[in-house]
Amino acid sequence: MGKELLSTQPYKGTRDFYPEDMDLRNWFFGVIKDTLRKFNYREYDGPMLESYEMYAAKSGEEIVNEQTYHFTDNGGRTLAVRPEMTPTVARMVAAKLGSLNMPLRWFSIPNLYRYEKPQRGRLREHWQVNVDMFGSDSVETDLELLIVASSLLKAFGADSSMYQIKINNRRFYNDLFEQVMGFDKEQSRKVSKAIDKKAKMPQEDFNEYLKDLGLNDEQVVKLNSFFEMPLAEMTALCPESQGAQELNKLFDLIDAAGMSDICEFDFGIIRGFDYYTGTVFEVYDTDINNNRAMFGGGRYDNLINLFVDKANVSGIGFGFGDVTLENFLVSHNLVPELNYGMPRVLVTRFPEIPYGEYLKLAEELRANNISVSVYTDDKKLAKQMKYAADEKYDFAIILGEDELKNNTVVLKDLSKGENIPVSRQDLVAKILEK
Amino acid sequence: MGKELLSTQPYKGTRDFYPEDMDLRNWFFGVIKDTLRKFNYREYDGPMLESYEMYAAKSGEEIVNEQTYHFTDNGGRTLAVRPEMTPTVARMVAAKLGSLNMPLRWFSIPNLYRYEKPQRGRLREHWQVNVDMFGSDSVETDLELLIVASSLLKAFGADSSMYQIKINNRRFYNDLFEQVMGFDKEQSRKVSKAIDKKAKMPQEDFNEYLKDLGLNDEQVVKLNSFFEMPLAEMTALCPESQGAQELNKLFDLIDAAGMSDICEFDFGIIRGFDYYTGTVFEVYDTDINNNRAMFGGGRYDNLINLFVDKANVSGIGFGFGDVTLENFLVSHNLVPELNYGMPRVLVTRFPEIPYGEYLKLAEELRANNISVSVYTDDKKLAKQMKYAADEKYDFAIILGEDELKNNTVVLKDLSKGENIPVSRQDLVAKILEK
Repeated sequence: MGKELLSTQPYKGTRDFYPEDMDLRNWFFGVIKDTLRKFNYREYDGPMLESYEMYAAKSGEEIVNEQTYHFTDNGGRTLAVRPEMTPTVARMVAAKLGSLNMPLRWFSIPNLYRYEKPQRGRLREHWQVNVDMFGSDSVETDLELLIVASSLLKAFGADSSMYQIKINNRRFYNDLFEQVMGFDKEQSRKVSKAIDKKAKMPQEDFNEYLKDLGLNDEQVVKLNSFFEMPLAEMTALCPESQGAQELNKLFDLIDAAGMSDICEFDFGIIRGFDYYTGTVFEVYDTDINNNRAMFGGGRYDNLINLFVDKANVSGIGFGFGDVTLENFLVSHNLVPELNYGMPRVLVTRFPEIPYGEYLKLAEELRANNISVSVYTDDKKLAKQMKYAADEKYDFAIILGEDELKNNTVVLKDLSKGENIPVSRQDLVAKILEK
Repeated sequence: MGKELLSTQPYKGTRDFYPEDMDLRNWFFGVIKDTLRKFNYREYDGPMLESYEMYAAKSGEEIVNEQTYHFTDNGGRTLAVRPEMTPTVARMVAAKLGSLNMPLRWFSIPNLYRYEKPQRGRLREHWQVNVDMFGSDSVETDLELLIVASSLLKAFGADSSMYQIKINNRRFYNDLFEQVMGFDKEQSRKVSKAIDKKAKMPQEDFNEYLKDLGLNDEQVVKLNSFFEMPLAEMTALCPESQGAQELNKLFDLIDAAGMSDICEFDFGIIRGFDYYTGTVFEVYDTDINNNRAMFGGGRYDNLINLFVDKANVSGIGFGFGDVTLENFLVSHNLVPELNYGMPRVLVTRFPEIPYGEYLKLAEELRANNISVSVYTDDKKLAKQMKYAADEKYDFAIILGEDELKNNTVVLKDLSKGENIPVSRQDLVAKILEK
């Protein structure tokens, strides 16, 4: 009594992956890696702990100050548990700038941490697929990232009715704010933050928000009109804008790629991070019960410059989390029954048979791509058989004195409950034929 | 001028994995997962951040106090960046004790952090394969873990001349200390810590160390004799000891498993963690230039009891790190040339050809398990070809006006430098035949 037991719960907002959860995660990651390999994207990884100043330098402020786990080591360095991967990949590219061939196609699947305020369904960690291209600022490159995002969803069995890519351009809306709305830089930044939150508030609150930022009634009406205006009409408002030209070219290419049905211009797409400079996009689930951004990304021209003066290596990338992906796949019924990939066999044992006989049998089967456990305890056969059934083995094998003498085994097919005597010679074939 | 640039270096003692490093890591993990699957071990994972008290409760003190990164969150919880996986897996097993079928065979490959004092070659993080069985305390189970450890090295191409498994038993040496040496519990603990460090000091220093712990000359001589004594002679010193019986049975089973050549009793194997209770073992590289423990593990009877009163679920497991494994494989020349697994093709482009034609071609090839990039910039063909060669693509494809008209392409085999005109119909077969 009085013994203080430790909690079996993981830290709030983090997850344990039991084998069945891990099977699902491995399936996710497998499909993703296979798809990205077909596009020649190569996998990288960086450390979980990074210098805190790296995030402070270029991310949105809220994310760094309130939402990043950080602490100081004994040497006085402030470390962050990485909240996002983009600063890491920018650092890695910067470190080898002289020896890397551009453009680079890279991806990673890091575990990321955010100190979210505890609330229902908000996790503090997730696994996030990050896909980036560096060293090309063409609109064709922007298109490639959209194609890759779409191909990832298709690889999971999604069709084009299930998701929608919404696209904007930061250069464009900055120019529009300056040239058409007459905002200065600071006002532009504040209005774009307001737009980023627009979807989460009623229209009146949004209008009030804009008025608080100093917009007059006319400006509020004008700004709201942009959310309904077709792309051609909007880009015509500031035709000299590089962003407007990029948007028009991107939508021409989207047409050429046959992706017009899944891509649309959306002036409401802003993206939280300050580091984006050009094309920005989000991929939405069209299911109204899960109508939120799944993937988000965009072009960032200046991140490498934080590490190397005047590097001028443009990047574009997107990320999406495992939780978001799972919600999408579940809502569209796209998670298949996962199988083990090879037959699973339990070799039961009798204490009077030399244990080496069971080990030898197990090794023979494993050499033929069969998954085998030998029962290691001294328990009655019925108990061993129950274990085989509970653990969903495909087969149990019984090897007693008679079988040993006759060079046979009894093979029990656990799905049918049949006991079949099989010669040792035919055993592998019999197991594999199922 | 005056712009403060961020460092491109990762945090001291951590590593960046560039694509070529990641290929190697993926190969390691792939071989390991395939092998463990053949033994029916199932993968799990837990969070990177865990409650600090979990490590304080049962690990060796030094490791927790000095070597674990820890910090306090805004809610006042002290968190650790996990330094080892065993407390996590014990917690996870404890949480589902009622619904798990025993014995469990589980593995994981977590990234672990230790706050090592900075010195040459000492990393602060590594990826550690953890293999555990829960719910069986038989000696046959101990043997299984030795077989799995050995099978993992064999799966990488190692033969039995390259590694040696050194085995001891904590129950045995505790009994020996108490019954033969006359030590009390505290003295036993201190002497075992001394033995754990024996390999790192000259014999005289070890003797001095023992004398400082209060051993007299006779005890020092006797203790030293154990490092030379055969198992049978030693276990005969305290034949009633459960540990002695376990050791004798384990070596009989090792014989039955045909592993006598790679397994030996070694009284110097102690293991740093306090939580081991029975069999302990380490796997050594026999290469004298890398003569250190690669794998370490053992049986722990009481870890689940930290979470669930009187659970009495015994566990046994071992771990080994990616850095250690790489040193072993390199020293024995066991790292093969890794290949991409599918042909890699760069589709070059001319600005006058509709971009959609290149996208269509790329999609056709990808559908046939060929990895394809389309060149996304508007550069001269020579520059595109140089990029293809630098990035070690297998093929480049040229599709100009003539080819488009004739439904052909020019396929350039970059290893031979040949340009072959190929009809679109034959293209996939031509690429795959290589």
